[in-house]
Amino acid sequence: MDELKVFCPATIANISCGFDVLGVALDSVGDEMVVRKTKEKGIKITKLIGQELPLETNKNVAGVAAVALLDAIGYREGFEIEIYKKIKAGSGIGSSAASSTGAVWAINELLGKPFSSLDLVKFAMEGEYLASGVHHADNVAPALYGGFTLVRSYEPLDVIKINTPDKLYATVIHPQIEIKTSDSRKILKTSITLKDGIKQWGNVGGLVAGLFIEDYELIGRSLEDHIIEPIRSILIPEFNKVKSESIKAGALGGGISGSGPSIFALSKGENTANDVAEAMRNVYKNIGINFDVHVSKINPQGIKTID
Amino acid sequence: MDELKVFCPATIANISCGFDVLGVALDSVGDEMVVRKTKEKGIKITKLIGQELPLETNKNVAGVAAVALLDAIGYREGFEIEIYKKIKAGSGIGSSAASSTGAVWAINELLGKPFSSLDLVKFAMEGEYLASGVHHADNVAPALYGGFTLVRSYEPLDVIKINTPDKLYATVIHPQIEIKTSDSRKILKTSITLKDGIKQWGNVGGLVAGLFIEDYELIGRSLEDHIIEPIRSILIPEFNKVKSESIKAGALGGGISGSGPSIFALSKGENTANDVAEAMRNVYKNIGINFDVHVSKINPQGIKTID
Repeated sequence: MDELKVFCPATIANISCGFDVLGVALDSVGDEMVVRKTKEKGIKITKLIGQELPLETNKNVAGVAAVALLDAIGYREGFEIEIYKKIKAGSGIGSSAASSTGAVWAINELLGKPFSSLDLVKFAMEGEYLASGVHHADNVAPALYGGFTLVRSYEPLDVIKINTPDKLYATVIHPQIEIKTSDSRKILKTSITLKDGIKQWGNVGGLVAGLFIEDYELIGRSLEDHIIEPIRSILIPEFNKVKSESIKAGALGGGISGSGPSIFALSKGENTANDVAEAMRNVYKNIGINFDVHVSKINPQGIKTID
Repeated sequence: MDELKVFCPATIANISCGFDVLGVALDSVGDEMVVRKTKEKGIKITKLIGQELPLETNKNVAGVAAVALLDAIGYREGFEIEIYKKIKAGSGIGSSAASSTGAVWAINELLGKPFSSLDLVKFAMEGEYLASGVHHADNVAPALYGGFTLVRSYEPLDVIKINTPDKLYATVIHPQIEIKTSDSRKILKTSITLKDGIKQWGNVGGLVAGLFIEDYELIGRSLEDHIIEPIRSILIPEFNKVKSESIKAGALGGGISGSGPSIFALSKGENTANDVAEAMRNVYKNIGINFDVHVSKINPQGIKTID
């Protein structure tokens, strides 16, 4: 096998109470990539369709992640990569993570899987560092593992796959305004009250428990964020209205996707997720900002090969 | 049925990363209580063996909790309570919670179970308030539900029962020094860094996930507390040595039980838990403080009737 075509899912990081630790993979939104063995050593990005992004290997997140993988095996192989971007850069649903993880996952397959999923997370994190200045793993982990993932610890890196209830759907609205990850990090406070901390880890425990026992109501009750959301949501027009109308339309709960500007809601069942999409559209249709809305089943598998 | 004899388990609250939210019930350590219907309305504590504690209903945690229950049904019934204390007051393994929960659980049984477990938690919390000045639920919840419990939220009160892996044992050493819950609350800081908060909720997620998937190593890795333990442990002689020797002896991890002074460790299997007990004894045997050591399987059921 010398060539692989893969689907690289969009992901929601910072799931509400799970700031910096909980992420989830989507199923109907994602990039496609073709990765091909070459005789020449090294990584070449030969095509990049759909977005204005750099083709130079060391400036492209997929290139940087792929090089990190090659470095780990002595830089003896060569691959060319075509990227068909469907996730908009800066949308807050893991655009850079999709490219980074797609590259390293496909190369690992073509090499006969010398690396574990955890290794691939580490390589892909180099792409995240290029994109945001932070080695964060909460988008690349769900893209690689599928479903919900918990990054329990960074030192050492510890990624845990959480059970994904079958009827869980995500609805995401992407208002097309620009919020840089670095900017949205800067506005956060470096300290929090112990009281808010206790609420947050109570909710993380509740959310993880709810996912395992498939208690949709508990999942909904646990989608609370007393720390990050109140600060970051002021950067997102009509955030509170989108959230409250989503819940009125039947969503279990929701929050900011990644560092925004996308807003996500989780629902039980596709019909409800579609109702939530309609409610989100109704909030945004008259405010003069372009937007996309996605409805997706939770993707239990992560990156996969496609024809 | 006019009379019931019950076993009221000791409990470990503040399980490491799960400060204020995670607790667990023990199986071989606990109080016994006899609760008997009376013709006279109201609650009377008729016996209190094993500890110097007040018999007056409104000064006794079991009395106060039982009155809270009676108030909820119009104060039409009457019960007398005998308490055989085996858990030392102030030991940090839920002595007051055992009495409060035992009373309300037994009365609820004798009345034909008009109340849910969550209702009983609320009544028993009145006993905790009398004992510590705080309406905390992280001891009474595991005593009533059994196994591991998560208090996700206090307003509204939301208690979730977490799966308990079958081979999980606790070892607890109780150094007989006095630390008042109110004092050990006072030394805590009211704010924490966001960075430590993220580590803490990552570990709570990891611990809850580890309990559900019965991954003992993950449970062990998640028993980290970067926030409370570094502050409170200075009140407990040789805390660090007890913890490190427990881990050397095979424990998965451990921490402060409740607000101390007891120290707990969790282990896979009874043999290891016994080795950990020996390691704990070896640390304490020459430092001139009296101590008790308990080894117990995790109690999956909570309070139960006995003959």
